[in-house]
Amino acid sequence: MTTEAHPDGCLTREILDRIGDKWSVFVIDELASGTRRFTELRRAIDGISQRMLTVTLRALERDGLISRHAYPVIPPRVDYCLTPLGRSLLDIVEALTTWSGRHAEDVERARARYDGNR
Amino acid sequence: MTTEAHPDGCLTREILDRIGDKWSVFVIDELASGTRRFTELRRAIDGISQRMLTVTLRALERDGLISRHAYPVIPPRVDYCLTPLGRSLLDIVEALTTWSGRHAEDVERARARYDGNR
Repeated sequence: MTTEAHPDGCLTREILDRIGDKWSVFVIDELASGTRRFTELRRAIDGISQRMLTVTLRALERDGLISRHAYPVIPPRVDYCLTPLGRSLLDIVEALTTWSGRHAEDVERARARYDGNR
Repeated sequence: MTTEAHPDGCLTREILDRIGDKWSVFVIDELASGTRRFTELRRAIDGISQRMLTVTLRALERDGLISRHAYPVIPPRVDYCLTPLGRSLLDIVEALTTWSGRHAEDVERARARYDGNR
């Protein structure tokens, strides 16, 4: 992949890092089924810390992939949902998680073989 | 995404980090058209350092996505190509790079808007 073929190579790389990030993938996957509160996302995504979820949501919002709605109630309520741009990623995100789940054992076997040969 | 739905959640996350990594994506994309030498990959992938290419190739080899062939010649020659497991990722990798290229401007606009509102 050369700069000639991809004039926006640098931005493309940044975007790849964002959408390939595992936490982004899990958040987008979770929002596929609809609007979620912060606390619901936290509960649904196994192993994510409050801080990491905050950072991930902010980056996804900044990139225009999700939108955030804060309601002036007590206790505070904040909802997140996919934007149309975020929805356009759903097929890819689903393909990524399906591939990873389906080939987890292949990768595990390859790693054991590689580590055993060293 | 819960642990119940994904018993291999932890490994799936690791794999997502690997295949979502921008350099992995560029290497897989480059190997889509056939076997490449180290030096050819280095030239073809804009902005990658020798060290980062080495690290990326080793991780992809360990995960069983590419295979490495070293020829006992002088100067040393090392070839890389996709394994069948690596080839099974090609559609996803292509979808990722296509999406990133196509929506680079949307993301850029969203970022400018976000940063302007802060």
